[in-house]
Amino acid sequence: MQLPFMGTFAIDDFYTGTRAALAGGTTMIMDFALPQKEESLIEAYHKWRAWADPKVCCDYALHVGVTWWNNKVPQEMAQLTREHGINSFKMFLAYKDLWQLNDEELLEAFKACKEIGALAQVHAENGDIIKENSKKLLALGITGPEGHEMSRPEEVEAEATMRACVLANQVGCPLYVVHVMSKSAADVVRAKRKQGCVVFGEPIAASLGTDGTHYWHKCWRHAAAFVMGPPLRPDPTTPNYLMDLLANGDLQTTGTDNCTFSASQKAIGKDDFTKIPNGVNGVEDRMSVLWEKGVVSGKMDACRFVAVTSTNAAKIFNIYPRKGMEVHGTADFVISGGKVVVEDGELKCVAGAGKFVATLPFSPAVYSRIENRDRVYAPRKVIRAPYDGVVTAMNVTLASVESQIDSGDTSGISSSQGNSFYGRGRRSVPPTSTSAVFNLHESTFSVAGDQPCDQSPVKRSSIKVNNPPGGKSAGSFW
Amino acid sequence: MQLPFMGTFAIDDFYTGTRAALAGGTTMIMDFALPQKEESLIEAYHKWRAWADPKVCCDYALHVGVTWWNNKVPQEMAQLTREHGINSFKMFLAYKDLWQLNDEELLEAFKACKEIGALAQVHAENGDIIKENSKKLLALGITGPEGHEMSRPEEVEAEATMRACVLANQVGCPLYVVHVMSKSAADVVRAKRKQGCVVFGEPIAASLGTDGTHYWHKCWRHAAAFVMGPPLRPDPTTPNYLMDLLANGDLQTTGTDNCTFSASQKAIGKDDFTKIPNGVNGVEDRMSVLWEKGVVSGKMDACRFVAVTSTNAAKIFNIYPRKGMEVHGTADFVISGGKVVVEDGELKCVAGAGKFVATLPFSPAVYSRIENRDRVYAPRKVIRAPYDGVVTAMNVTLASVESQIDSGDTSGISSSQGNSFYGRGRRSVPPTSTSAVFNLHESTFSVAGDQPCDQSPVKRSSIKVNNPPGGKSAGSFW
Amino acid sequence: MQLPFMGTFAIDDFYTGTRAALAGGTTMIMDFALPQKEESLIEAYHKWRAWADPKVCCDYALHVGVTWWNNKVPQEMAQLTREHGINSFKMFLAYKDLWQLNDEELLEAFKACKEIGALAQVHAENGDIIKENSKKLLALGITGPEGHEMSRPEEVEAEATMRACVLANQVGCPLYVVHVMSKSAADVVRAKRKQGCVVFGEPIAASLGTDGTHYWHKCWRHAAAFVMGPPLRPDPTTPNYLMDLLANGDLQTTGTDNCTFSASQKAIGKDDFTKIPNGVNGVEDRMSVLWEKGVVSGKMDACRFVAVTSTNAAKIFNIYPRKGMEVHGTADFVISGGKVVVEDGELKCVAGAGKFVATLPFSPAVYSRIENRDRVYAPRKVIRAPYDGVVTAMNVTLASVESQIDSGDTSGISSSQGNSFYGRGRRSVPPTSTSAVFNLHESTFSVAGDQPCDQSPVKRSSIKVNNPPGGKSAGSFW
Amino acid sequence: MQLPFMGTFAIDDFYTGTRAALAGGTTMIMDFALPQKEESLIEAYHKWRAWADPKVCCDYALHVGVTWWNNKVPQEMAQLTREHGINSFKMFLAYKDLWQLNDEELLEAFKACKEIGALAQVHAENGDIIKENSKKLLALGITGPEGHEMSRPEEVEAEATMRACVLANQVGCPLYVVHVMSKSAADVVRAKRKQGCVVFGEPIAASLGTDGTHYWHKCWRHAAAFVMGPPLRPDPTTPNYLMDLLANGDLQTTGTDNCTFSASQKAIGKDDFTKIPNGVNGVEDRMSVLWEKGVVSGKMDACRFVAVTSTNAAKIFNIYPRKGMEVHGTADFVISGGKVVVEDGELKCVAGAGKFVATLPFSPAVYSRIENRDRVYAPRKVIRAPYDGVVTAMNVTLASVESQIDSGDTSGISSSQGNSFYGRGRRSVPPTSTSAVFNLHESTFSVAGDQPCDQSPVKRSSIKVNNPPGGKSAGSFW
Repeated sequence: MQLPFMGTFAIDDFYTGTRAALAGGTTMIMDFALPQKEESLIEAYHKWRAWADPKVCCDYALHVGVTWWNNKVPQEMAQLTREHGINSFKMFLAYKDLWQLNDEELLEAFKACKEIGALAQVHAENGDIIKENSKKLLALGITGPEGHEMSRPEEVEAEATMRACVLANQVGCPLYVVHVMSKSAADVVRAKRKQGCVVFGEPIAASLGTDGTHYWHKCWRHAAAFVMGPPLRPDPTTPNYLMDLLANGDLQTTGTDNCTFSASQKAIGKDDFTKIPNGVNGVEDRMSVLWEKGVVSGKMDACRFVAVTSTNAAKIFNIYPRKGMEVHGTADFVISGGKVVVEDGELKCVAGAGKFVATLPFSPAVYSRIENRDRVYAPRKVIRAPYDGVVTAMNVTLASVESQIDSGDTSGISSSQGNSFYGRGRRSVPPTSTSAVFNLHESTFSVAGDQPCDQSPVKRSSIKVNNPPGGKSAGSFW
Repeated sequence: MQLPFMGTFAIDDFYTGTRAALAGGTTMIMDFALPQKEESLIEAYHKWRAWADPKVCCDYALHVGVTWWNNKVPQEMAQLTREHGINSFKMFLAYKDLWQLNDEELLEAFKACKEIGALAQVHAENGDIIKENSKKLLALGITGPEGHEMSRPEEVEAEATMRACVLANQVGCPLYVVHVMSKSAADVVRAKRKQGCVVFGEPIAASLGTDGTHYWHKCWRHAAAFVMGPPLRPDPTTPNYLMDLLANGDLQTTGTDNCTFSASQKAIGKDDFTKIPNGVNGVEDRMSVLWEKGVVSGKMDACRFVAVTSTNAAKIFNIYPRKGMEVHGTADFVISGGKVVVEDGELKCVAGAGKFVATLPFSPAVYSRIENRDRVYAPRKVIRAPYDGVVTAMNVTLASVESQIDSGDTSGISSSQGNSFYGRGRRSVPPTSTSAVFNLHESTFSVAGDQPCDQSPVKRSSIKVNNPPGGKSAGSFW
Repeated sequence: MQLPFMGTFAIDDFYTGTRAALAGGTTMIMDFALPQKEESLIEAYHKWRAWADPKVCCDYALHVGVTWWNNKVPQEMAQLTREHGINSFKMFLAYKDLWQLNDEELLEAFKACKEIGALAQVHAENGDIIKENSKKLLALGITGPEGHEMSRPEEVEAEATMRACVLANQVGCPLYVVHVMSKSAADVVRAKRKQGCVVFGEPIAASLGTDGTHYWHKCWRHAAAFVMGPPLRPDPTTPNYLMDLLANGDLQTTGTDNCTFSASQKAIGKDDFTKIPNGVNGVEDRMSVLWEKGVVSGKMDACRFVAVTSTNAAKIFNIYPRKGMEVHGTADFVISGGKVVVEDGELKCVAGAGKFVATLPFSPAVYSRIENRDRVYAPRKVIRAPYDGVVTAMNVTLASVESQIDSGDTSGISSSQGNSFYGRGRRSVPPTSTSAVFNLHESTFSVAGDQPCDQSPVKRSSIKVNNPPGGKSAGSFW
Repeated sequence: MQLPFMGTFAIDDFYTGTRAALAGGTTMIMDFALPQKEESLIEAYHKWRAWADPKVCCDYALHVGVTWWNNKVPQEMAQLTREHGINSFKMFLAYKDLWQLNDEELLEAFKACKEIGALAQVHAENGDIIKENSKKLLALGITGPEGHEMSRPEEVEAEATMRACVLANQVGCPLYVVHVMSKSAADVVRAKRKQGCVVFGEPIAASLGTDGTHYWHKCWRHAAAFVMGPPLRPDPTTPNYLMDLLANGDLQTTGTDNCTFSASQKAIGKDDFTKIPNGVNGVEDRMSVLWEKGVVSGKMDACRFVAVTSTNAAKIFNIYPRKGMEVHGTADFVISGGKVVVEDGELKCVAGAGKFVATLPFSPAVYSRIENRDRVYAPRKVIRAPYDGVVTAMNVTLASVESQIDSGDTSGISSSQGNSFYGRGRRSVPPTSTSAVFNLHESTFSVAGDQPCDQSPVKRSSIKVNNPPGGKSAGSFW
C-alpha cells in the first residue's frame, strides 16, 4: 500500500487500505517495505512505519524487500530481525535493472535468511525474458495490455519458481512464493513440496477469482485494470485449478498483492504496456472470493477456509496463536482487537487504531523441520586411503598442450600411467561382444583411468548416500 | 577429444578416439570445438580442424561452443554456418567464471541460433550453485570425489534444464540438451516436449550403463574415474529410467560425452574434487551398452535401437540420409565409408581416412515445425479505440509522492479519477455479502480502476488467445 | 484383532492388542468387524462387541466389513449407523471368491454409504489378477513368500485404488483407502485429491518403516513374517516416498493393519505362499516409527505428527474433539481416559477398562463438502425444442438388416434422410483441401447426420458444463 | 462399417465407406468384425468378408471382436490367426450385458492373444458405471444427448484404460487402446508407456478435431450427431492436448472409429440418450484434420504425419512395408494399388477393386520386445532351506477358534511358538523409546513371528528383484 512504483504510487494509503481490509473481514495485514536500489533496508522500514502507524485501522506487520545486494545488506537484515520485528524478506527474480537479483545474489540472500531464521519470499518471474519479450512486442506495435501477458507467459513464471525453489533448497532456506498465478507455477510448488522441500505457495484473490482473458478486452481501461505481475493467465481453468490445490493442501495461504491504481494512473502506460503500473485491489474481496469459490462450491470445508485465509499464514509468520481469527460465513460481523468494527454494513474504524505486530524469527512451523534436517543431512565425507600414484604436472599451459599435440608427442604425459590405462581400462583391439555383454550384466561399466584398487570395492548396501527428505532430486547438503 | 580442460587435456586424440569409435561400431563422430574466453569462434574451429583432419579414422562433424558473448560472436556464428559447415552451437549454464553464460547472454545466443537455422545445445547445470556448494564442502573438509556429486545434485541439473528450455522456447529456438544424466532433468525434457516445445534430450552411455554410487567408492582412483559433469546420480534406478524414456520416445539420441583422462591426470584433483578433470570414456561402449541394456532387456526393439544410436541424430543434425547406418547386433563387423574396418576382432584403420562432414542449417527435422509456428503464432494485437481519459502526470518524483503522502494530501492525484474510482470499483461502505456472491458467480471479479467502457465487453468466445503448440505454459510469441 | 482368517486367527486378542497399543502411545483403536459370506453384518458387529468389551484396555470403535451383497445388506448398514455407532464400512476389491465385490456391487455399497452418511473404506487390490498370478507362480514351483509379492505387484494395487476412487466419485461417496503400500497407489490418491475428489489415504507403520525386499530373504520365517496384503514393496525408496506424502498433506492418516500371526501360524503356508496368513503387527510401533522417520528426520514437524497419528483420523471418523490426543516425543508417558497408563516403562492397564466409542454419521470433515457438491453439481438438462424429423423404425431385426445389406437395398432406410445426409454432411466428391482447411480452422468438424438447425448454434461461452470440483476428469453428477 | 448396432446399422456400407476413405486419401482401412453374444467368431469373420469383398474400393483388413467368453473362443481366435489373416482382437470393458467382459474374462482373452501372437485391442470405458449413471440421469429427466457425456465422464474412460493396461501387462500381452478420447485416458497410456509397458494409443479424427461442448447444443440433431462412445470431452483443450501427445510420440496412430448414422437413425434415441446409435463419420476427414491441426499448426512435421497416419499402424499390424503410404500435403492426388484414384477432385473407384489383406501374428514391432522380456523377466524362485518349525494345525474351524477365544484359552495354539514369538518379536513391557529409535535407524522394522534364522540375513545388494522393463509398478511375471 502506498507503494511508490513505476512513476506513480498506489492509490490506497494505509487508512483506505486497512479500512477495505476490515470491510472484507481481514483484521490484520502484512505489507512490504521496499527499499529502492542502494537504499538502506532499515531506513525503508522506518519510512513505512512512519506512513503506516498513524493511519492503520487494523493491526499490521511488515516484510522487507531485498532489492539489491552488497555485504551490508545481510547485516541490516539481521538487525531488522533482531530489533525490529521482521522475520521475512522478499526477493525479486523479475524487474530487471530495478529490483532483480541474479542467482549469485539470491543464494547470498537465502543464506542470510537462513542464518537469522527468517523466511525468504520471492516474486518469481524471469526478468531477462520479460525485458527481451517486451522489447520485441513493442517493436511489433503491440502496445496494449495484452502485451503484458504475452511478454511473460506462464512458463516464465514457472521457470523462476523452479529456480527459486532449487536455490533456496540448496542452501537449506525455507521459501514462500508470493502470488502464484498459474497452473505451471503451482505445479512446481506442488512437486517441490512432494520432494520434501520447505516451500509455501500463496495464490491471490485475483487468480482464484478470474482469469487473464481480460487483457484481450476491447476496452483499454478494462484490460489495463487487470495488469499485475505476474499476470492473470488466459487459461480459463486456472482459478479452479489453484483453488483445488489450495483445498487439498498443495498451496497453503491466500494473499491479495493489493496494490491499487486508478484508471488515470494506469493510463500512464496507454501507449506502452510496460509503463502500466502493476497492481490490482483485492484485500476487500479475498475472504468472499475464497468463501464463494472455495466453500460454497464444495471444494473445501469451513476448517480449511480458516486455515488458508488465516491460520496457516499466522503459523508461518509466527504470530499464531496471537492471530488466526475464526470466521463465520462472509463478513457480516468483523471483530478486530476485541471490538466489533463491521456490523450490519456499517464500518466503524479509526485511523491509527491498529498496531504494528512484531514477528519473531525461527517460526516453529517453518524452522523446526529445517533444524532437524541440518542435523540429519549434514554432509559426511568418505574416509579413504590417500591417493599415492603419479600426478600429472598441474598448470600445464594451453600452449604446451597444443605444442605436444601438434607434434604428436604425448610421451610427456606420464607414460606409465598411459600404459596402465590402456592396459586395463581400454582395449587396444576391438572388444569381443561377449565380454562387453558380460561386463554390462555385472554393471561394471568400464571407465578409463579406473585402476586396480587395493581396497576391495565398497559394498553398495553400505553406501550411506546423503539423501535429504526430498530424496535425490531435492538433494542439498546445507 | 583432445580437449584442453582444467589444466590438462583429454588423453584421446582424434586418432585414438575415432579408432575407439570404430571399434565400438560408430562410424562417424561429432565433437565440440571450444573457444576459450575471448577467443574467436572461427579460430577455434580451424584449430580443431587442424588437429582432427590428419588423424581421424572415421568421418566427423563439429559443434562449436559459445563460451562468451559480445556482438561479434553472432557474426562469427553466422559465418561458421554459412561457410564452414557448422549447424549447432553449445552453450554452458555451468562453469562459472569460465564458459558460463547468464540468462541475458543465453537469450542472445538462442536468438542468433534461430536466426541462422542452427540448433542450440546446452550443458545444463546451475554454475552459481555449484560454485557455492563446492566452497562450502571444501570448507567442511570434504575433498574427495563424493563432493563432486554433492556439489551438484540432481535438482541443480533439472533447474538449468528447465531454464534452458524456457529461454529457448521464448525466442522460438530449437534446443538439444546434451548429457541428460538424471531422472529429474529427463522429466523436464519430457514435460516440455509434451507441451510442444522443440527440444531433444540425449542421455549418454555412462548414465545408461551405471550410476553415481561409484563416487562413494573407498578407492580414490575408482571414484575419481567417474567424475564428469553433470555427474552420474546415486539413485540406482536412474539408468533404467533413462533407458525407458529413450525407448518410448521421450529422449531421442545417445551420446558419450567422451572425454578421457588418465588416473594421473585425474589425480590433479586428489586433494580437491573441483580440480579433478571432468570426463569419462564411452565412445567405444555406447553401442554395446545400448544393445545390451536396451534391446536384450526387452525395452526397445532393433528399429528403435538404430533410431536412438544413429538415425535420429543424423536427422537432427541434417546429415540424413547421408549418414544413419544400419546395425546388426553388436559390432562384429563395422563398415565405414564402404570399407570393412572391423572384422573378427581385427581393427583396420588409417589416420586421416576420415573426412569432415559439413552440416547444413535449417535441418528439416528441427526447423520445419519452427517455421510453421512462427507463422501461426505470430503475435497479434488487439484493435482498440484509443484511451481518452485523464492521465496522471508521469515522472512523479519519489520525493513529491512522499511529500503528498506525508501531508495526507491526495488532491493532486486527479481527484475526478479518484472519485470515479471509488464510485464504481470500490465500495466506500462494506459490501453486503449477497452482492459479492453475485459478482463472483458472474465471474466479474471487481478490479479497481476498471471504469465503464463504451464498447460492449468482448465475448470470451471470440478471444483468439495466442496459444502456441505447447499451450499456454509454453506460450511465447516469436 | 482376533480375526479368524485363512484357516487360523490373529494371535492378538483385544486384551493383548489394546495393551500393545497403549504401550506404544495409542489410546484408542479402530478395528474391523468382518462378517463371513452371507453372515449378517449386525451379527458380526455383536460378535466383535462381545469379544472386545470384556477385554479392551483402551477405548475402541468399529468399522464393519461389507463382504457380500444382496438387498438386505444396505438395510443392515443403515441400522448399524442409526443404532450401533458405526459410520464406516470396508469393502474388498481383492480376496476373490471370499470377500471380493465386483464393480456393480461396489457401486451399490458406495451408494448405500453415501445415503446414510458413512465413509466407504476399501482394500484396494485386483483380486482377479492375484488369483491368476498365484496359479501361474505355483505352477512354476515358486511357492515361497517372494511369490506373495510377485503375485500382486504395485500396479495391481494402483489399478484397484484408481478404480475405487472412480467408482466412489461417480456416486458422490467419500472414500478412505486403507493400507496404502506403494508409491503407485499413493500417486493415485494424490492425483484424485488434486482433482478434488473426497478421498483419504492411510499408509501403515510397516510401509513407512521398511520395504518388501524381506520377501526375498533366505530364511523362510523371516520372509513369511512380512506377508500382508497388499504386500510391502521391493522398491526401497517407498518408505521415504510415503512419508513425504504424509508430511505434505497428500496422505492423511496412519494405520497399522495390525493383524498378528505367530511363526507356526504363518507356517500353514510353508509350501504355498497363498496359504500364509496375511498380517503383521504394528500397533505398538506406529507412533515411534512416525516420530523417528517423520519428525526426527525433518520431514514433518510435531504439529503434523499429531495430525497424522491422531487428529486427522479423529476428525474423519467424527470423534473429534472427543479424541485426538496431544503427543510429546515418543511415549514416555501415556494418558488414557484421564489416567496415566504408561509411566517410566511401566504399563498399568486393566482388561475391560476401555469402552466402545460410537461414531456418528455425516462427519463434517467428510460430508460438509459432499453436501455442497451435491447441491452445486446437480445435473441440469439442456432445454430443447423436441426433435420433429423422421425416425428410423426401431427394432430393426438383425435378420432384416442383413438381408437388406445382402441385396444392396437400402431404400427401406428413410431415403429422404439418406439424401439429406449425403446432401450436407458428406461430400459425394472429394473435398478440395481448401474447404477442409477452412472448416477445421473454424472448428466445425463435420459430422454425419448433423442437419441444419433452426436454432442458431449455442454460443460456446454460454455453455454451462457441469464441472464438479475436481474438474472434468472427476466429473460425476450424483 | 455396416455394423448392426443398437437396433439399427451403420449407414456406410463397404462401398460408400471405402469410397470416402479414398476421397480423404486413405488407401487401406481396417474394420471390426463383431460377433454377437454366443455367435462364432469365425462365422462373424466370414459374414464380414462376404459383406466387404464385393464392395470395397480399397484394400482392407479385419480385427475381430471378442464379445463373450467360453473355452471355445480361444480356439477360434487361434484358428482366425492361423488360417484367416487376423492378428488383432478387440475386447470391450463397456456395453454391459451386451459385449462387456469382466476382469476374469479379459485376463483369459489377453492370455489367448499373447499365446497366438495377436495384439489385444480394447474399448476402454467402465460399463458398470455407465449403466448406473444412465439410469440415474434418465430418472432425473435428463434424456438429451448431454446425458450421454454426463453418464460417462473422462474418469470413466481413464479408469478402464488403466485397468486394461494393468490386466494386459500382468499377463505380458501387448495392448492397443482404440479411440483415446480424453486427456485423462491419454495420460494413462503415456504413463504406462513410460513405465515400459507395450501399449499403443489411438486418438481419432473427431477427438483431434473438435470437442464435446456439442452435446450441450440447443439443437437435438446437432447434439445427437456427435454421440459416440467414448464421447468427445467438454474440456476444450482436449484436441490440442491429444495432438501434442501424438506429435511427441506418446500416442502412436490415428483412427476414425468411423460408424456413420443418419439423423433419422440417431432419432431412435430422441427421448432417451442411451438409445442414440453411437458413431460418427471421420474416415474421409482423418488426413486433412491431421494435416491441418498437426502439421500446419507446427505441432508435427511431415515425417511424423506419415508415421501417425500410416506407417506406425502398418508396423503395428504387421503389414509394413507392404502398406504405409507416402503423403504429400492434403490429398490432391491419391494413389491406390498403383492407380491414381483421386485426381483433381475426381474420384475413380470401383466396388470390389480392393482386396482383403491378411495380417500375420507376432508383428515384430509389437512382439520382439515381448519375447525378450519373457526371457529376461521370467520369475525366479528364492532357494531356501525348508521350514522345519512347528506348524499350527490347518483347517481350524471357525467354531473352534471362536470357542477358544471366548474361553480365553490360547494354549491349543502351539504354545512354544507363542512363547518364542512373545520372547522376541513383541515386548511384554513397553519399549524404551531409545531402543525403538535404534531399531528404526537400522531399518529392522520389528515384525511378529520373525524368529531367529540360522542363515545370516541376505545382503540387500544381492537381492535380484524381478524388475521388468517398466520397473516395479509395471511388475508382472508372465
